[in-house]
Amino acid sequence: MSQQKVTPRSEDYSRWYTEVIQKAELADYAPVRGCMVIRPYGYALWENIQDTLNSMFKATGHKNAYFPLFIPESFLKKEAEHVEGFAPELAVVTIGGGKELEEPLVVRPTSETIINHMFAQWIHSYRDLPLLLNQWCNVVRWELRTRLFLRTLEFLWQEGHTAHATAEESEAEARRMLGVYQNFAENFGAVPVIPGRKSESEKFAGAVVSYSIEAMMGDKRALQSGTSHNLGQNFAKAFGTQYLDKNNVLQYVWQTSWGLSTRFIGAIIMVHGDDQGLILPPKLAPTQVVIVPIWRKDEDKARVLAAVDQIKADLGAQVRIEVDDREGFTPGFKFNEWELRGVPLRLEIGPKDLEQANVVLARRDTRQKVTVPQAGLLPHILQTLDEIQSNMFTRAKDFMDANTFDVSDYGQFKEMMQGEEAAGFVRAYWCGDRGCEAQIKEETRATSRCIPFEQDGTQGVCFHCGRPATEKVIFAKAY
Amino acid sequence: MSQQKVTPRSEDYSRWYTEVIQKAELADYAPVRGCMVIRPYGYALWENIQDTLNSMFKATGHKNAYFPLFIPESFLKKEAEHVEGFAPELAVVTIGGGKELEEPLVVRPTSETIINHMFAQWIHSYRDLPLLLNQWCNVVRWELRTRLFLRTLEFLWQEGHTAHATAEESEAEARRMLGVYQNFAENFGAVPVIPGRKSESEKFAGAVVSYSIEAMMGDKRALQSGTSHNLGQNFAKAFGTQYLDKNNVLQYVWQTSWGLSTRFIGAIIMVHGDDQGLILPPKLAPTQVVIVPIWRKDEDKARVLAAVDQIKADLGAQVRIEVDDREGFTPGFKFNEWELRGVPLRLEIGPKDLEQANVVLARRDTRQKVTVPQAGLLPHILQTLDEIQSNMFTRAKDFMDANTFDVSDYGQFKEMMQGEEAAGFVRAYWCGDRGCEAQIKEETRATSRCIPFEQDGTQGVCFHCGRPATEKVIFAKAY
Repeated sequence: MSQQKVTPRSEDYSRWYTEVIQKAELADYAPVRGCMVIRPYGYALWENIQDTLNSMFKATGHKNAYFPLFIPESFLKKEAEHVEGFAPELAVVTIGGGKELEEPLVVRPTSETIINHMFAQWIHSYRDLPLLLNQWCNVVRWELRTRLFLRTLEFLWQEGHTAHATAEESEAEARRMLGVYQNFAENFGAVPVIPGRKSESEKFAGAVVSYSIEAMMGDKRALQSGTSHNLGQNFAKAFGTQYLDKNNVLQYVWQTSWGLSTRFIGAIIMVHGDDQGLILPPKLAPTQVVIVPIWRKDEDKARVLAAVDQIKADLGAQVRIEVDDREGFTPGFKFNEWELRGVPLRLEIGPKDLEQANVVLARRDTRQKVTVPQAGLLPHILQTLDEIQSNMFTRAKDFMDANTFDVSDYGQFKEMMQGEEAAGFVRAYWCGDRGCEAQIKEETRATSRCIPFEQDGTQGVCFHCGRPATEKVIFAKAY
Repeated sequence: MSQQKVTPRSEDYSRWYTEVIQKAELADYAPVRGCMVIRPYGYALWENIQDTLNSMFKATGHKNAYFPLFIPESFLKKEAEHVEGFAPELAVVTIGGGKELEEPLVVRPTSETIINHMFAQWIHSYRDLPLLLNQWCNVVRWELRTRLFLRTLEFLWQEGHTAHATAEESEAEARRMLGVYQNFAENFGAVPVIPGRKSESEKFAGAVVSYSIEAMMGDKRALQSGTSHNLGQNFAKAFGTQYLDKNNVLQYVWQTSWGLSTRFIGAIIMVHGDDQGLILPPKLAPTQVVIVPIWRKDEDKARVLAAVDQIKADLGAQVRIEVDDREGFTPGFKFNEWELRGVPLRLEIGPKDLEQANVVLARRDTRQKVTVPQAGLLPHILQTLDEIQSNMFTRAKDFMDANTFDVSDYGQFKEMMQGEEAAGFVRAYWCGDRGCEAQIKEETRATSRCIPFEQDGTQGVCFHCGRPATEKVIFAKAY
């Protein structure tokens, strides 16, 4: 067995990213262009993301449902902006059961249209509102440039869809769910984010207003890591989704939708990983602690493995453990492999440790080793996992803060955005004009990421066109 | 609010089935022919099925993964029987991103082909075996006659795919996983089944041998409720899925696949339901106990609701509870609605019960009410739920046994199979010949369901053609 090695992150970030994914067995390329296979290790990470978000959605009163994969082509055309945004990205089924279909079926790129078709049948009165649904599913968008997890033709996600009686409620819901995403990203993914509003040209096709959380990757590029949309009555009017209010008057519902996808796995990889490979946040890691038993002589083996069994029993259901007792691999080989796979904590135990009733703990985030007594191991490990979780967040937050710059001079900005490398986030007064943004993008390849909720309340002039501006925006090169 | 009523099961079974599904809000028709929307109540049932099976799969060493929705058309053609079986049922994507595709993409009807493509890359040596994977996903089969849950164009399922070093191992795996399905069906779904082998003409396209569990619905028709296939080396040879054995010789792997789908929800509905609607087995029911607080005077309301809160807290995390404290609905209306939705146990509590420190428990399966003291309520409820679970199984088993007949005379069989109604299961000696089965099907519309593992070891003659027969087979009209 040859040792698994990845191209160092510092050497070639893009190659490092792809190699880490494949060598850590998170995912692999599928035989269809732009599609991926999520391997067990990657899928277990996704399941932990699902479980975490499901608890959060349940706490906010949302229920899971499942809507069809196929959407009649005519549905997409009912909302003008929506079809304009999605038409270039559609996969279309034209043959079913050997026959040409009368109406082609679109493979869902998102489900607002088909869900509104159903909502229009289910919602009758104000008593039926709010209707708070979510679905976990696959969606397809015919992207030209793809990258594992970040942008694939087919991806997995959850899409929340809600209907409300008032504009205020749908606005509050869109904001609330962005808050859920921020909480999830920061407190579970250890991924610091900037929550804010999307610009007109970056908002969802069919939304009144879109919100997003934006994270900074290890190469200083931005990654939109979750979005939430206030759809207003756009889809309700297109699909006739109405309810009788308390005064018996027919009203259109107010709606939201919001989504987080397997793309978030890309964020975890890129925010935390290092030259040795992945570093997974303990709260989401499929394996939190890997135990590597060490022995040279055969007579030691049984003793060491017995101790491992005892430790495993002691740690019990509170920690997700893997024991690597494979024969024919050196401890060094195993250490390297589990580092590549980003397991937060490694526990080593050999004959010497046994004699002294100790174990060795090696943190993945700091790569520091400590020897600790077996007595009191569980609380020690739980505390260490917490420390790793919070250290990972702090480190990523410090990196983002250190690479976020206030800029008022467009010349300086242009210079920063020159070259292949990304320069981080630039916070600048901006007028909010579509044309102005298009020019900035053309000149620098940077786009507005979001208009942060947190503003200092001051006013200024647009760093590009000089018109009055009331808000600062984050500009960055993005994935 | 008008009372929800379903057509009695005894009056029109087929209409009852569809009405129950829609009125209990398990599912609804989608705007695309043959597709369905799974509503939150139905999806929660599916999630409980998923959780239960996931635990069982984990215990048998299987890991979840995710393979792409799209399969190149050429892949299906690599295994001759497979393409013959699935070609008439395919949905085909011919347009992507506005352009005609060079090679059309098939929407997966099942994933043996694309999974073998990946297995061929991942499997190198005997050390990589066995490879035990499972995926939860949607699949599409272009069925002409569809019915909610039982047969829909798109359905949700899990499909297990495994690769092994020897023929014995793949055979053992196929049998083991059928055992998992039987355990699940009987001990969680309370659905008694007959496990056995499929006939040549009923087996999976591409399998060496197929196994199934067959259940009897309330109208005495059979429903195949889970299947498991020993694929031999058929797909391995088509895709070059090989490994180096311990002697460094290249060998093709031996494989299995096995699946259970949202169809099982149809089985639960049809095996257990009655004129009042659904009856859900406690182990899978989204809500196990519904609490209906009863009050007439306003001054009673607060007291009753306080008691309900206390009961809910006492029952805690061990029981899945719903409290129906909606205003403006009579208790009778609520009772009817929760019966329609099949909640196993209803707890009623009013001012009188409060005075006597009692509650009323109404079982859904027997529709019997008992008054029990609030003290010791949790163990009482847990025991009652167990009793309901086991009573439901026993009742269904008795029904299946009472409607399973040993027949040796084909004339008698033909008479039994006459008319629209189904006559139950017929157990008969049969030769196993394809042509013979085709004739029986043409003459009676009955098909062989499975050759039960349990045989009495005797020999006889085929009840249709008179040739020697060594096994008895179950024949029935089936969904």
